[in-house]
Amino acid sequence: MNSDAVFLIVGLGLMGGSYAKALKAKEFTVYAIDRDEDSIKFALENGIIDKGAVNNDPELISEADYIVIALYPTLVVNWVKDNQECFRPGTILTDVTGIKFSVVYSLQDILRSDVEFIAAHPMAGRELSGVRNSDPNIFTKANYIVVPTDRNTSETIAWCKELGSILGFSRISELSPEDHDRAIAFVSQLTHCIAVSLMTCTDNEHLADYTGDSFRDLTRIARINENMWTELFFLNKEALLREMDLFIGEFNSIRNLIESENGPELKEKMRLSTKRRALFDKK
Amino acid sequence: MNSDAVFLIVGLGLMGGSYAKALKAKEFTVYAIDRDEDSIKFALENGIIDKGAVNNDPELISEADYIVIALYPTLVVNWVKDNQECFRPGTILTDVTGIKFSVVYSLQDILRSDVEFIAAHPMAGRELSGVRNSDPNIFTKANYIVVPTDRNTSETIAWCKELGSILGFSRISELSPEDHDRAIAFVSQLTHCIAVSLMTCTDNEHLADYTGDSFRDLTRIARINENMWTELFFLNKEALLREMDLFIGEFNSIRNLIESENGPELKEKMRLSTKRRALFDKK
Repeated sequence: MNSDAVFLIVGLGLMGGSYAKALKAKEFTVYAIDRDEDSIKFALENGIIDKGAVNNDPELISEADYIVIALYPTLVVNWVKDNQECFRPGTILTDVTGIKFSVVYSLQDILRSDVEFIAAHPMAGRELSGVRNSDPNIFTKANYIVVPTDRNTSETIAWCKELGSILGFSRISELSPEDHDRAIAFVSQLTHCIAVSLMTCTDNEHLADYTGDSFRDLTRIARINENMWTELFFLNKEALLREMDLFIGEFNSIRNLIESENGPELKEKMRLSTKRRALFDKK
Repeated sequence: MNSDAVFLIVGLGLMGGSYAKALKAKEFTVYAIDRDEDSIKFALENGIIDKGAVNNDPELISEADYIVIALYPTLVVNWVKDNQECFRPGTILTDVTGIKFSVVYSLQDILRSDVEFIAAHPMAGRELSGVRNSDPNIFTKANYIVVPTDRNTSETIAWCKELGSILGFSRISELSPEDHDRAIAFVSQLTHCIAVSLMTCTDNEHLADYTGDSFRDLTRIARINENMWTELFFLNKEALLREMDLFIGEFNSIRNLIESENGPELKEKMRLSTKRRALFDKK
């Protein structure tokens, strides 16, 4: 990727800000648009971006070689619809949204034919939001999934993988929108539903003094941005409900093995769990 | 606590070994009994203990001022029954088991009247077992719960708290056996059931490449010692089933809010979750 390239980040929150910092560290020129004046001011004052605007400034948009849309999922398609007349021909767009099927196809459907959109999911985050909490170190040891469709060229897929590598992700893979959403329903959305349920199922505030690391680890993600995650859950409802039902079924089986004190079958489940979990340790 | 004191660790596994290392670092004399010859040999060769035996050596037992029983929960009472004739009068016994109601009262019922047993739960662990993996650093920033009954003297309760502090625990608290088991059912046992269910509910091995930190955190404890945890679950069945049912009920509510796309109520749950979880961050 040419280091003269100009990136435009649309939505300068935790993720947009972390992209901006990582790209600036590699000497790229970085612009940003965010409706929050304080975010833009903070980013300019701290050298996180080179130029910024609080509205969809046509000049900033037209100067971009690459546009990273880091908005909430439901806003992505409309932002492109409203602003694509300003894109320079040949612009490459990408995103950071956590669900793909409901965004990617409708975006590619309305997109100008002389620019290209390649979806990507940076699987990183923090429990805090906003550009002030942004930190490119969250990408280290994390996964970056490129999510192409048959409308994407191999050059642009390669560009997107290079972007993941420039940002500092340690593992870069490729999935279709459908496979991506199924995987995410299980490894990310289901786990957030579990963490929230654990915190809300009972008045447990008095237990904070007696928790071990296991409870803290399980519920770290229970500090959750309710607006973003509600969007993500609803936009991937079918896949998420399928995984939730699978989990409920299995959890109930284990419950019943405990109730009936069926040691052999319970131990068999635990052995399978131990064996499988070993595969998930970071390599 | 007098540094001339002799500790006897019964059961030199991960927890017993970690106790031994922490106590030796504070200049105490440490003996150990374990039926596994390799564990005793390893501990002697590496200066983890001063003396060791692979059987219930009466001499070792009678020389101890303090005895830490670090056996599986179902073995604790019988070990005391079989060996208490060797105790020196005034010996203080403690344990490390993760459930208390089913152990503490029956042990105190059969115990010689000239010695005292004070229960304790060191809330620390690793996914690995055995003395070779023992590490007193697991106690740092962890909780230590002293679990007295009305048969315990205030001096011995104070001794047990001092032991927790010598071992390096950062938070030492006190609960009755009943309250302890209720708290543990929620913060520890329920979370282990969830982690195991996540690993066994579906053939997810191909998903290892796409996991974020949240899934890794939630399932770290899915690598589980099946013999110990099956004992712990069965010995605390009533409390655990109650917490499992509370969790299933709440998880189903959240499932139904997603199915009906009830944004306001789902966001309300997430806000409660976020607010509560903030209390659980390590202070």
